Amino acid sequence: MERRRIGILNSGGDCPGLNAVLRGSVRAAQKLGWEVVGFKDGFEGLLPPGRFMMLDRHKTAGIMPLGGTILGTTNKGHFVAKVGAHGTKAVIAEEIIEQARAVLKGLRVEGLIIIGGDGSLSTALQLQEAGIPTVGVPKTIDNDLEATAMTFGFDSAVACVADALDRLHTTATSHRRVMVIEVMGRHAGWIALYGGLAGGADIILLPEIPFDYDKVIDAVNKRTEDGCLSTMIVVAEGARPKDGAIRTRATAAGEYRLGGIAESVASEIAGRTDRETRVCVLGHLQRGGAPTTLDRILGTRFGIHAVEMIAAGQYGYMVSYQNYLVTEVPIADAVNRLRLVNPQGQMVMAARAVEVEFGD
Amino acid sequence: MERRRIGILNSGGDCPGLNAVLRGSVRAAQKLGWEVVGFKDGFEGLLPPGRFMMLDRHKTAGIMPLGGTILGTTNKGHFVAKVGAHGTKAVIAEEIIEQARAVLKGLRVEGLIIIGGDGSLSTALQLQEAGIPTVGVPKTIDNDLEATAMTFGFDSAVACVADALDRLHTTATSHRRVMVIEVMGRHAGWIALYGGLAGGADIILLPEIPFDYDKVIDAVNKRTEDGCLSTMIVVAEGARPKDGAIRTRATAAGEYRLGGIAESVASEIAGRTDRETRVCVLGHLQRGGAPTTLDRILGTRFGIHAVEMIAAGQYGYMVSYQNYLVTEVPIADAVNRLRLVNPQGQMVMAARAVEVEFGD
Amino acid sequence: MERRRIGILNSGGDCPGLNAVLRGSVRAAQKLGWEVVGFKDGFEGLLPPGRFMMLDRHKTAGIMPLGGTILGTTNKGHFVAKVGAHGTKAVIAEEIIEQARAVLKGLRVEGLIIIGGDGSLSTALQLQEAGIPTVGVPKTIDNDLEATAMTFGFDSAVACVADALDRLHTTATSHRRVMVIEVMGRHAGWIALYGGLAGGADIILLPEIPFDYDKVIDAVNKRTEDGCLSTMIVVAEGARPKDGAIRTRATAAGEYRLGGIAESVASEIAGRTDRETRVCVLGHLQRGGAPTTLDRILGTRFGIHAVEMIAAGQYGYMVSYQNYLVTEVPIADAVNRLRLVNPQGQMVMAARAVEVEFGD
Amino acid sequence: MERRRIGILNSGGDCPGLNAVLRGSVRAAQKLGWEVVGFKDGFEGLLPPGRFMMLDRHKTAGIMPLGGTILGTTNKGHFVAKVGAHGTKAVIAEEIIEQARAVLKGLRVEGLIIIGGDGSLSTALQLQEAGIPTVGVPKTIDNDLEATAMTFGFDSAVACVADALDRLHTTATSHRRVMVIEVMGRHAGWIALYGGLAGGADIILLPEIPFDYDKVIDAVNKRTEDGCLSTMIVVAEGARPKDGAIRTRATAAGEYRLGGIAESVASEIAGRTDRETRVCVLGHLQRGGAPTTLDRILGTRFGIHAVEMIAAGQYGYMVSYQNYLVTEVPIADAVNRLRLVNPQGQMVMAARAVEVEFGD
Repeated sequence: MERRRIGILNSGGDCPGLNAVLRGSVRAAQKLGWEVVGFKDGFEGLLPPGRFMMLDRHKTAGIMPLGGTILGTTNKGHFVAKVGAHGTKAVIAEEIIEQARAVLKGLRVEGLIIIGGDGSLSTALQLQEAGIPTVGVPKTIDNDLEATAMTFGFDSAVACVADALDRLHTTATSHRRVMVIEVMGRHAGWIALYGGLAGGADIILLPEIPFDYDKVIDAVNKRTEDGCLSTMIVVAEGARPKDGAIRTRATAAGEYRLGGIAESVASEIAGRTDRETRVCVLGHLQRGGAPTTLDRILGTRFGIHAVEMIAAGQYGYMVSYQNYLVTEVPIADAVNRLRLVNPQGQMVMAARAVEVEFGD
Repeated sequence: MERRRIGILNSGGDCPGLNAVLRGSVRAAQKLGWEVVGFKDGFEGLLPPGRFMMLDRHKTAGIMPLGGTILGTTNKGHFVAKVGAHGTKAVIAEEIIEQARAVLKGLRVEGLIIIGGDGSLSTALQLQEAGIPTVGVPKTIDNDLEATAMTFGFDSAVACVADALDRLHTTATSHRRVMVIEVMGRHAGWIALYGGLAGGADIILLPEIPFDYDKVIDAVNKRTEDGCLSTMIVVAEGARPKDGAIRTRATAAGEYRLGGIAESVASEIAGRTDRETRVCVLGHLQRGGAPTTLDRILGTRFGIHAVEMIAAGQYGYMVSYQNYLVTEVPIADAVNRLRLVNPQGQMVMAARAVEVEFGD
Repeated sequence: MERRRIGILNSGGDCPGLNAVLRGSVRAAQKLGWEVVGFKDGFEGLLPPGRFMMLDRHKTAGIMPLGGTILGTTNKGHFVAKVGAHGTKAVIAEEIIEQARAVLKGLRVEGLIIIGGDGSLSTALQLQEAGIPTVGVPKTIDNDLEATAMTFGFDSAVACVADALDRLHTTATSHRRVMVIEVMGRHAGWIALYGGLAGGADIILLPEIPFDYDKVIDAVNKRTEDGCLSTMIVVAEGARPKDGAIRTRATAAGEYRLGGIAESVASEIAGRTDRETRVCVLGHLQRGGAPTTLDRILGTRFGIHAVEMIAAGQYGYMVSYQNYLVTEVPIADAVNRLRLVNPQGQMVMAARAVEVEFGD
Repeated sequence: MERRRIGILNSGGDCPGLNAVLRGSVRAAQKLGWEVVGFKDGFEGLLPPGRFMMLDRHKTAGIMPLGGTILGTTNKGHFVAKVGAHGTKAVIAEEIIEQARAVLKGLRVEGLIIIGGDGSLSTALQLQEAGIPTVGVPKTIDNDLEATAMTFGFDSAVACVADALDRLHTTATSHRRVMVIEVMGRHAGWIALYGGLAGGADIILLPEIPFDYDKVIDAVNKRTEDGCLSTMIVVAEGARPKDGAIRTRATAAGEYRLGGIAESVASEIAGRTDRETRVCVLGHLQRGGAPTTLDRILGTRFGIHAVEMIAAGQYGYMVSYQNYLVTEVPIADAVNRLRLVNPQGQMVMAARAVEVEFGD
């Protein structure tokens, strides 16, 4: 008799812990006697004739400490929703969905686990609405989904930021410098806030708290007066001054544009104080490396729970972490709802208590 | 005018994140305009004439990434409670309390922050009852206090275990071996459970789940039959077989006795299977190294909140972490209440789902 | 037309950098248009019907940072030389060699790269003398071969020791303890010497410098008098006191016997000083983990050069590192010649200059 | 009776291992019964009234694993040599030397250890010629001094590069991207060559081997055709195309200018292939973090030998590493003689053997 089969794919930017999710799902499915089809390169693997690999315990052995994803992933492709005229809802072309349906049917895939961020979960929802049974696993390195208290990858990114601050702190102190470190976070400043706090940053600039250049300059000067040897500034890539302007040298547009806001902040400081100032843009380093134990465990548990949801026929739902327990919520309730740093929340207050400046 | 003064000390075994607590308290106190007296070597620093150092921002600069504690600590000394005859309550000698009171008064210390585990918090409570205003900060690397959802140090210990498993996994696989790794946990198996899960252990033995040697042997043999190249076994130091006996070679008692239960488990496997078996006892490695970001942040927040509790006159209370917020509970309600691994809880179920064996 | 084919295997204990050698050989062979047969589990893979995998660029992609060896290895098996009666030369059984010859011929393997230590190189030599063309790559984590200035794996083991010392130093200092760390080195103390020096050890005990317990005790006491908070002792597993006796508790023999000499040293210190003393046995941790850059590069260069030696028909030779250049020496000149720590050499003198005690 | 006194300072950019040199010198001096004056912020500490701290065993305890330098350093200041009119020799102003002489005399400093790069060693030479007894310790993270086979700091920088490549490799592979990593090396490409080789880079661009954009593009395309999932390019900051032009977007000058050549290379690839391309500039991360064991040991040995040179009255000499031994050379013979990568040397040949492209 044929064994039951499920599919799994990850979509969007890679994130530490993806391999833990894959391993968790595969082991949990195998324990139930199921087979697992892993689709390659995100949703693109669903297109005819199907790009996939069969996953089992041996294929996923030893992958938990590895960054990236053994399936590959993509940010782009045929499943990107197109916004209709007059602001109508973004949708994937109908023929693309039909092609995916045919591939899944041909492979006898009963249910599909989709690991992805807000956009990918919207795609998952559309597949579900089109009759393809899906469950979601949230993936956002920024930890900015309202529907889950925690997502894997975030802790690893924060660890990368803190490690960089440890490294840069000794050199900044030796040279009595100001160091501006740009980290991920276009809309939400969680990585900057946690990474900065853990790495002992003196100034943290977040998208949620527009800053004032004068206040930043004052904070740097005050530290110099107090005899502090260095000043460490963590700035989220989405942080902006109150007047909205990024004061920086003109640059041509470019996909690999470096250090936008960080260079702007550094320019101001170098120009208006007597401190030597240096910039470091962490960029993709934050996505790589061995995931932390927290991310490995969270990823594993998410992967297991997704299989349990398929076993229970709970399609259209997404894994969620609430009160230290893994549970689930409807995907429809989860998408498009960001969780931002609360400027009056306990974490920001804690940071202020240890004399972190936010430039506001 | 004289500035207000508070005291701080840490007691019992050292734990990653202690320096973050010290730094957090000092910075928070300094922001309020207070001075901080750091007592050395645990409660012993309170004895006349007082062994201490004044702590300020510069003294605590750069200490967050360091393991250990800049104040020193001790497990022993004059403040260890003596159990009275006929099971009467354990108490510290009255004259010791009076000596501490005199030292604190002489130094103008208004309130004392005590960072410690169950025993040290009992001492804190007794000081409080004797009229010395104290607040507590829980410290247990085993994360086994009922009164707080999380304690600092645990995540770092788990990271150490997972890192060791990553290291040992490649050598075990290359040699087709069974590897038995002994980790901390006399009463609670949290470190073994989280570390084992994050490090991809195949068998995890916990104090809370007595194991059967036959089941362990079966699990090893089954893996060999399935073509698995290695078997990784994590065993908490307090794990015990169902029949209660540790079957091991006779040894003289010794403070630095190595590998009790791990050697016993390895002996059985080596004797009853055809697998080469090796033992690794992590021991004190689990206490050292740079704390993880989670422990740095938790320690910092605990240190800040202890100062806020003094500012609010909330003596006799202990910092606690609940629902992602730092809050406080009465010390009297917190001591002597352990949080153990629930054999039917979600974490153990998750481990079973990924085919971890518990030997039960 | 068929492409030329070479074989490769690793034998004996695993060692960080083995995968770098494999990757280096495969890439170098591929550049010459050759194919590479990787034999599994050491020499055992040569037995009929042959256990092997074809290695190419894709199979060896991403393996350099991994510990262990993707081919597997063994310390034992059919190729272990048997010592004849009356001390005649140790030899491998003739029929075993014939079986290996047949397998190699069947697979069209022209030359065989053997990565191994002293014993495995002796086997390589015997194969070569029996007409099977071999070249050797030296592998000893102890770095104790006279015929090469450096071997891969050693630097990674030293890094593991220093990292452990960093971790243990903070906890030892916090508790004012003596810490005894046992490291690899049965005959040669290079790991203890380099690891101890890099990790800031206060006392280093080596096989090459028999120690006196009284001198060790004196050194511990002197440090206590000088106000030093901790004493870190690194002891090679082969270190011995001058009188030859290991004073330790009676133990049954056991393959996984822990902490022989370290426990003995700790017993003496705990019994004869007032210091709390703890033991840590690093064991197999020293073999795992990502190899250091030095070991990756050295392994890569060794792997490349082995292929170049086959291209030049230089069989019966072994790769060697001399004066910062990779070159080769006859295997016959290399085996059975150990390089030991010179007690009057510059490294020991340097250690003494920074007040390291050797207990002599 | 007064004890003999020596001085020590570090000058120029910080470098992993500086603290090991300080600790080594202090311990060696202390063993001889001498005192050590540590001057702060490079040569600037020599100006009246003298900025310094007395260094002893306790002040240097536990500093070996720390990056940076506890003395502080500077690239600039009053001791920067001024080039005279008509190309006359660069000299420090006479009055500056007199001030330093007075401070050293006032502190009874008999000999001065100067840890620094080419420029700082020239200054040391000028002080020596002016009658201030000095010995030099070479410091160049680029490892580009002809007069010593190895300098501390280089191995740590290479480790940082390889670690970054490990991290970036998984994310690049998951997204099928080209990743361009810019590393230190204005004149010499050693860090790029060793870091690239250890991190498994596919293309390495060095100052010593001018590259051709067409060849780089060809290499990227060839890898895509061969089915390679990612292409990792390491580029030294001083690498240049054969035609000399850096084809990049116009930028205003700025001290913290990011990613010059890396952005240029990435622009070309993104524009001329179908590969997504990303840039990462490691910058100051390469100077920080715990030094590797090799750098700790080399730094320690250099620090010891500098003290031995003072003990022997060997002023005007610099510590040097030759044939695995620490020795010394006249400073006058050492300055202004760079050691560059030999495009025909064994290391470049090894890299080519494992299919690394240099774009030439």
